[in-house]
Amino acid sequence: MKLITAEQFRQERDAGSLEQDSNAEIDEIVLTIIKEVRESGDKALLQYTEKLDGVKLNQLAVTDEEFREARNAVSKTFIKALKAAKQNITDFHAKQKEVSWFTHSEDGIMLGQKVTPLDKVGVYVPGGKAAYPSTVLMNVIPAKLAGVNEIVITTPPDTNGKISPEVLTAAEMVGADAVYKVGGAQAIAALAYGTPTVKKVAKIVGPGNSFVARAKKWVYGDVAIDMIAGPSEICVVADETASPEFVAADLLSQAEHDEQARSICITTSPTLAEEIKQTIDQQTEKLERKEIIQKSLSANGRIINVSDLAEAFSLVNEIAPEHLQLMIENPSEKLGMVKHAGAIFLGNYSPEPLGDYFAGPNHTLPTSGTAAFASPLGVYDFLKKSSIIQYSNSALQAASDHIITMAEAEGLTAHANSIKVRKDAYHA
Amino acid sequence: MKLITAEQFRQERDAGSLEQDSNAEIDEIVLTIIKEVRESGDKALLQYTEKLDGVKLNQLAVTDEEFREARNAVSKTFIKALKAAKQNITDFHAKQKEVSWFTHSEDGIMLGQKVTPLDKVGVYVPGGKAAYPSTVLMNVIPAKLAGVNEIVITTPPDTNGKISPEVLTAAEMVGADAVYKVGGAQAIAALAYGTPTVKKVAKIVGPGNSFVARAKKWVYGDVAIDMIAGPSEICVVADETASPEFVAADLLSQAEHDEQARSICITTSPTLAEEIKQTIDQQTEKLERKEIIQKSLSANGRIINVSDLAEAFSLVNEIAPEHLQLMIENPSEKLGMVKHAGAIFLGNYSPEPLGDYFAGPNHTLPTSGTAAFASPLGVYDFLKKSSIIQYSNSALQAASDHIITMAEAEGLTAHANSIKVRKDAYHA
Repeated sequence: MKLITAEQFRQERDAGSLEQDSNAEIDEIVLTIIKEVRESGDKALLQYTEKLDGVKLNQLAVTDEEFREARNAVSKTFIKALKAAKQNITDFHAKQKEVSWFTHSEDGIMLGQKVTPLDKVGVYVPGGKAAYPSTVLMNVIPAKLAGVNEIVITTPPDTNGKISPEVLTAAEMVGADAVYKVGGAQAIAALAYGTPTVKKVAKIVGPGNSFVARAKKWVYGDVAIDMIAGPSEICVVADETASPEFVAADLLSQAEHDEQARSICITTSPTLAEEIKQTIDQQTEKLERKEIIQKSLSANGRIINVSDLAEAFSLVNEIAPEHLQLMIENPSEKLGMVKHAGAIFLGNYSPEPLGDYFAGPNHTLPTSGTAAFASPLGVYDFLKKSSIIQYSNSALQAASDHIITMAEAEGLTAHANSIKVRKDAYHA
Repeated sequence: MKLITAEQFRQERDAGSLEQDSNAEIDEIVLTIIKEVRESGDKALLQYTEKLDGVKLNQLAVTDEEFREARNAVSKTFIKALKAAKQNITDFHAKQKEVSWFTHSEDGIMLGQKVTPLDKVGVYVPGGKAAYPSTVLMNVIPAKLAGVNEIVITTPPDTNGKISPEVLTAAEMVGADAVYKVGGAQAIAALAYGTPTVKKVAKIVGPGNSFVARAKKWVYGDVAIDMIAGPSEICVVADETASPEFVAADLLSQAEHDEQARSICITTSPTLAEEIKQTIDQQTEKLERKEIIQKSLSANGRIINVSDLAEAFSLVNEIAPEHLQLMIENPSEKLGMVKHAGAIFLGNYSPEPLGDYFAGPNHTLPTSGTAAFASPLGVYDFLKKSSIIQYSNSALQAASDHIITMAEAEGLTAHANSIKVRKDAYHA
């Protein structure tokens, strides 16, 4: 893992900043898939599943029998962990619920904001070789709390046409309405435009590979999406009070995701920087996903030496990391220095995996610097607002000249006329 | 204006639903512009302004002198109307402010949601021949209330290189930090990626033509955007208590926007339907923007006869209109029937232009059915959240087995290791 200065970090970053993503090839495939799914519906879904996931299915929906099998296949230890996580996630997200509000004035004006849940939501859960039951919890629970009427999951099957029992158990536990065995851009197209089996939804949420991400970008606007997720990242700010062993383990946990994952440590202690570097090498040797970790760290892992915490936080706000760990003295005193981060973990005993699985806040977080403008997934993602406006006749008359003036200033005379007919009627 | 049934309306809609937007030509132009602005910065902005707006500028930023001239050019009546509107918009949006919250448990767990404003926002204001001071108020005021540090406006100049004095006066009144004379896709590219003059922003908001809308779709993800706005729409639900004159005037006010604008009336009264149809013809004759109105109404204007209000509201929820006017008896009793609408106007004295200019709620609303998943622009668009997680050593130890179980179920063993090193240290 490279040891660099803040200056060197900025140079590396700026050198890469004009690189355009080369999505042209992916886009061509994705747009063809979307077109075919819109035209041929379920038939296209089954064909792409055969072609891309290597399995010929007769039916897309997971059956009751398969849910039953899944329940029997998972361990009791897993069920207990899942239940405890579900409780924590529910408790945290319940605090995000929003209510409609209204104001009334003496002259007969009512203004308000009405909050309504989305009708139907689709959750994409990555699958194939891996299983992500935590994705199910983190996406379905806030939608349920918002009051979404119907929540469906799409996830690619393995080559035997099966879905991981852990994912199915989680889906059943949180009350998903259906699970469909379909992944990739074809799943996104189905959720966005509907097929006879997979009905059109109002919003698509959940992570995925680059085909899924590009498909989400393309359907965005016709349907809402949570975000276009980039590679996962962690930024650990550490001072001399941090344990090098803990910091190293946390950086490594990020690096195991994939080769694009970014693990960055910013430290005021040159001694700690050296210790972390050495500990990383020692720990990596013992880890299963050693190869991915080594590639990820060599490409995107950096330990940055800074002179003080002010410099550290200025770098943090430039990076706007998905995950930020503050392994420094009195971390909560420094929260005001953080402007941009998806989730902030305080102290030596709040490692990222605690947030990924268990603590309660959502693990779907803005990546690649988008924490500068985006939020963690939450109940608010599944609610929308309508403005309410009611004026009495007398209140409208009192406002009428101002409205006519503004409408005419914009050249919209039929707008002015809509007020004038009411003014004329009042004075008739 | 065509009189049809709900069934006929649905048939028309479904017949058009598979039409793909033909954006390929626009996209090619837009992507070239974005590329050139990223490569050549201000030079590209000045070149495109000369080419597309027909004026050769020396400087992009509006000067203090130009602001002074604008102040002197506008009428006192306009200033008074603008101030009254500003007050109402401020009062309404102030109620949307959000605060950070935290919870603490006895075993040393702190969880929370920290709310932070975006750093910098760009507001696109359409220009050229038209002037939209209301766009300035509706976009800048909520950003200011959110606490955004810097708010800049881009708007295309007229062929003399000038910006409308009404727009400049509004920009000064609400405290915009700068106004740049640049429009189209080039303005969106500048705001998304930055040039020496127009700095990169975190979010771009505001309406625009199809080049602006496509450019926003392309930069989305690198920067936040408010929405991809489609044609403007109104849906009036009217019963026999509605005044045909008022309904007609309101439908016409929508139709004058452009030929794509949609004016729909749904009524339970066949008599009223006929009266509205006739009144529309009479009123149209007297309106300045008669030609646009006639084209818009013939393409997209519909009066739909329904048997009862239940059928009316089921149609409303399918349409998810940008503007919904309920010109029926006891309209507030029917609010629960409305699931999807951008803004809802109640009664005979709450016409859409009241909301466009004056009442207080935002006039930037989800169009083209996107009210099924999107909200009016609000203070919440300029705020973002960070999750906060702090566990004590003992709280983490109590949770550690569950976290390890979940991480291992997902095959992420370095995640499990990050918990294990802390478990080992505790028991050492």
